[in-house]
Amino acid sequence: MQIKIGIVGYGNLGKGVEKAITQNPDMELKAIFTRRNCESIKPLGSSVLVYELKDLDQHSADIDVMILCGGSASDLPEQTPTAARWFNVVDSFDTHAKINEHLTAVDSEAASSGHVAIISVGWDPGMFSINRLYSAAILPEGETYTFWGKGISQGHSDAIRRVDGVLDARQYTVPIEEAVELARSGGKLTTDSTKRHIRECFVVAEEGADLDRIKNDIVTMPNYFAGYQTIVHFISMDELKEKHSAMPHGGFVIRSGHTGCENENHHAIEYSLKLDSNPEFTAGVLVAYARAAHRLNQEGKNGCLTAFDVPPAYLLPMKREEMIRKFL
Amino acid sequence: MQIKIGIVGYGNLGKGVEKAITQNPDMELKAIFTRRNCESIKPLGSSVLVYELKDLDQHSADIDVMILCGGSASDLPEQTPTAARWFNVVDSFDTHAKINEHLTAVDSEAASSGHVAIISVGWDPGMFSINRLYSAAILPEGETYTFWGKGISQGHSDAIRRVDGVLDARQYTVPIEEAVELARSGGKLTTDSTKRHIRECFVVAEEGADLDRIKNDIVTMPNYFAGYQTIVHFISMDELKEKHSAMPHGGFVIRSGHTGCENENHHAIEYSLKLDSNPEFTAGVLVAYARAAHRLNQEGKNGCLTAFDVPPAYLLPMKREEMIRKFL
Repeated sequence: MQIKIGIVGYGNLGKGVEKAITQNPDMELKAIFTRRNCESIKPLGSSVLVYELKDLDQHSADIDVMILCGGSASDLPEQTPTAARWFNVVDSFDTHAKINEHLTAVDSEAASSGHVAIISVGWDPGMFSINRLYSAAILPEGETYTFWGKGISQGHSDAIRRVDGVLDARQYTVPIEEAVELARSGGKLTTDSTKRHIRECFVVAEEGADLDRIKNDIVTMPNYFAGYQTIVHFISMDELKEKHSAMPHGGFVIRSGHTGCENENHHAIEYSLKLDSNPEFTAGVLVAYARAAHRLNQEGKNGCLTAFDVPPAYLLPMKREEMIRKFL
Repeated sequence: MQIKIGIVGYGNLGKGVEKAITQNPDMELKAIFTRRNCESIKPLGSSVLVYELKDLDQHSADIDVMILCGGSASDLPEQTPTAARWFNVVDSFDTHAKINEHLTAVDSEAASSGHVAIISVGWDPGMFSINRLYSAAILPEGETYTFWGKGISQGHSDAIRRVDGVLDARQYTVPIEEAVELARSGGKLTTDSTKRHIRECFVVAEEGADLDRIKNDIVTMPNYFAGYQTIVHFISMDELKEKHSAMPHGGFVIRSGHTGCENENHHAIEYSLKLDSNPEFTAGVLVAYARAAHRLNQEGKNGCLTAFDVPPAYLLPMKREEMIRKFL
């Protein structure tokens, strides 16, 4: 019996989930829910149904787990609690400072309706978070450094596009190699992540625009670029499309810790990701936790969880003995 | 209220656990159990008691979790099930092929006495296993490669010491750099780990011994060296003591996977460890899982678990909200 999956939102992440499900034979994509015109959506699988988002409540019997693929700014804070009334749900809510608030809202709906919700699963938050936790537990005396990149930051690319005279842009977050090396070798780094990353911008300007002014508007932009080492390249629209259309990302979590009577022994734990497609990788994490949500709910659990609450074994459809033989 | 810990076995690993407990303020080492003469053991803490191993059953009220620090060949198969009659227990049993068998034996004692046992926690099995599982769940289409080293293999060093004419020896397992790079970049590697590692041996021979014969005995030794690229260096006892007394180890788990309609996107997940002291790092893992065993037992759980069954949150003494804020 396959796990019946629904997707809310058919952007890059939703399409990634659709593809990820084809790699997991114990799952089946039943339906996509959208705010767009349903006719405009052509799912990969011919049996996949497309419904309007407002009709979500009419399909609670058809779906075991709903995977929410909207944005964290305005979609998920509303959609995840709402969907948890009728379904087990999984999302990749990634506004770090608001996760506790989101959890409270989702938990209230999931617990009262008897569903399992797993929030904020992706790579950061998600796999990076798990690694920060495990490594701090194992090496209590030490420091953890997270580096992001090299990869496209959607939020920073959007911010550049809002600058007057800019037609399009891509912003790469690039970890400073010397800082990564220092973290690996046990050196002490600043905890200020603005000093550990470079922001490299590829910008298409309107013809005749004042490039110096655009550059200045970017590098001094508060919250996004001010305080960072920021590099601005002006390129043509053709070059942007040709060389900067992919969505690579990745990064490192490094724990540098000490043990011994005099803290004389150094240990480095490093978890790194190098991803050709940020949304497709995030989709892989969502789908694995959808399996966990289904199984936990079948065991009678309900309420809102994070990746910290889910035993690793729940992510794979495999008997215990085989799992031990294969992975332990 | 601190968690009361006992240690069985006071070799390198037991001493590592003793030191690790001093880094965890929610724990207290109450007693060390040994087969040696109790008088010969001088614990770091003045309040730590030393008892004979045979009196284990008399101390069930004094200890919340017993950490078993013996060897996997003959100690743990007997000691872990026995200790599980009276205590929650944690071990680092590392004979991969026999973990299911060990689990069955431990589970039978732990379940019937109402204790929690967590077996095979260290770095391999342990942290490497968890990473093999997570990454296979996230990227179902791909290959996982485990590399060990550069580090001292105790078993291989012992094997060299048994060769006629050898006074002492250390064997380093060294991953072949080209194979590591190939795995990272998505290349296809042999699953035969003998082709991905070099064995480098530092040997002290008796005066006048036939060095060619010793070398030949080593490189042709079945199960240990035959099939590997093996390098033998003859050195003096002084040099061995000066340069090869530490116990460094480490390694990598690399998952190389693909996503997309045509598998066009490559992703690499890498978990790596670089450890100055193999036993002290393993001890850190054991202590974190001892905390989990205690908490799971307090919640009414019993029976034998592996790291796959334990939610990450159980490894840290922290409220949920704080854990989310700090690590998620």
